Amino acid sequence: MILTVTLNPAWDLTWSVDSLAVGGTNRVQQSSGRAGGKGVNVSRVLRQMGAPTVATGVVGGAPGQRLLEDLDSSGTPHRMLVDDSVETRSTLAVRETDGRVTILNEPGPVGPAELWARWLSHLDALLHEVALVVCSGSLPPWAPEDAYAVVTRRAHAARLRCIVDADGAALRAALPAGPDLVKPNEEELLRATGGPDVRAAGATALSQGAQRVVVSRGPQGLLAVDSTGTWEARPPALQPVNPTGAGDAAVAALAVGLVAEEPWPDVLRRAVAWSAAAVLHPAAGTVEASAVERLTAATEVRQVG
Amino acid sequence: MILTVTLNPAWDLTWSVDSLAVGGTNRVQQSSGRAGGKGVNVSRVLRQMGAPTVATGVVGGAPGQRLLEDLDSSGTPHRMLVDDSVETRSTLAVRETDGRVTILNEPGPVGPAELWARWLSHLDALLHEVALVVCSGSLPPWAPEDAYAVVTRRAHAARLRCIVDADGAALRAALPAGPDLVKPNEEELLRATGGPDVRAAGATALSQGAQRVVVSRGPQGLLAVDSTGTWEARPPALQPVNPTGAGDAAVAALAVGLVAEEPWPDVLRRAVAWSAAAVLHPAAGTVEASAVERLTAATEVRQVG
Repeated sequence: MILTVTLNPAWDLTWSVDSLAVGGTNRVQQSSGRAGGKGVNVSRVLRQMGAPTVATGVVGGAPGQRLLEDLDSSGTPHRMLVDDSVETRSTLAVRETDGRVTILNEPGPVGPAELWARWLSHLDALLHEVALVVCSGSLPPWAPEDAYAVVTRRAHAARLRCIVDADGAALRAALPAGPDLVKPNEEELLRATGGPDVRAAGATALSQGAQRVVVSRGPQGLLAVDSTGTWEARPPALQPVNPTGAGDAAVAALAVGLVAEEPWPDVLRRAVAWSAAAVLHPAAGTVEASAVERLTAATEVRQVG
Repeated sequence: MILTVTLNPAWDLTWSVDSLAVGGTNRVQQSSGRAGGKGVNVSRVLRQMGAPTVATGVVGGAPGQRLLEDLDSSGTPHRMLVDDSVETRSTLAVRETDGRVTILNEPGPVGPAELWARWLSHLDALLHEVALVVCSGSLPPWAPEDAYAVVTRRAHAARLRCIVDADGAALRAALPAGPDLVKPNEEELLRATGGPDVRAAGATALSQGAQRVVVSRGPQGLLAVDSTGTWEARPPALQPVNPTGAGDAAVAALAVGLVAEEPWPDVLRRAVAWSAAAVLHPAAGTVEASAVERLTAATEVRQVG
């Protein structure tokens, strides 16, 4: 069972408008909401692909209740810490008829000092039940900057592998704890390590503690670096439909591969195929098994260093 | 006691951003929410000015709960029908550092056919306790187009006066029931009656059943038309700070004047003074007694026809 950790989940709203009148008044034509946050998305993909998973994190307030209801109604297993000292943030995607999307992200809740300790107790209880931990996304103000380092160490103490998919300070602070795999995108990795290019940045992340670095590079697929070498995994040329959530699909596949202890090229091939399948589906972060099968065959993996 | 009716209330969110990146991702700097809807605003002003009031309407779902909590915490008396067959809509004001504001309004909830009858029973119970009814704002999809005509007739049957502040079809359909006063702004009146100018449009609204027409005209104040003549009421020249809610402040004052059966010029003078006081306060729809006193003295009322 793969445990996904989303410390800064969100209630993701999508509002459709004809054409956004900036500075004016806009009538929303259609409104929908769903549970959001990168770890939640990873669990959703795992569930679609039949891999046992449970999503955790901290939710609170009315948006937190809606998030839980949505996880229930979508059949995504969860063991969230419900704590009304925080109110789960919302995000809004304003979608115009011409396809343009404007995103507004509320900051995460501040929360009381003792929430971090309450969350760690909640986490510890879950570590006995799972095989691997995935930490995904931004950190809320109530969590320390090295939150993912702490989770990684607790996972390792429980003899579990740990994957970290984060940006900037959260990623940098996680590295010394030696996460089994980090999965930034190219821009995030350069930001966290100082660059100058993706291979050098990957080497820096390894030297700072990561055991494997897998960099997502959009249509170019993945670049993977570990102590044994460097790999490239490329999908076939695609007509992208909805790239949102493609990185989370890759993380879901990487988690499955690490748990199964598959050969590294096979792990990377699956990650590219799941990610590409997500890009081809109109609903964000949705992966269909039929697309995966075709894309797995068409994905090229080779050692480049 | 003045009963305000808000059939399409909203949870009003304000999100501050640096500068809105349309088609991009925006970090929300500050987030706040409050109970919204024009009748709710009228009750809020009445309460600030010490006039007994109670706000009613229909709320449901998580945003409805937040709306009720906000009414409680602001001390605004309410007797909302809580009905979870509808989910209260939200509105969002995106405020940029340069002061530009972009508004997004969710449509009202659809609701089941029987909700209208449930609401009317709820209303009937309240009519025994109040002196005047104010109907404000748009109608949700679950209410019939002539909703304000039905409320006006029930108010009259209970020997209560009724004010309607609405737009378009909702205003037009209310007129035959003979509301004691309608308070559209100039654009709304022209839209509801076909124009061609504000005086002719006022006469049309009277001929269609309104007993008094009071038209709000921004910095020019109010134009009032009834069977006995036409009045103009003008505030002094102002440096507007926040015009949002000025019309609702005028309606609150008109309601107080009708209940007290004051001379018509005094009623209009108060309405202009409260409205101008709201324009001068940074918080939307906030009226302070000290500003009102000064503005009442400086407001000019004269019969012009």
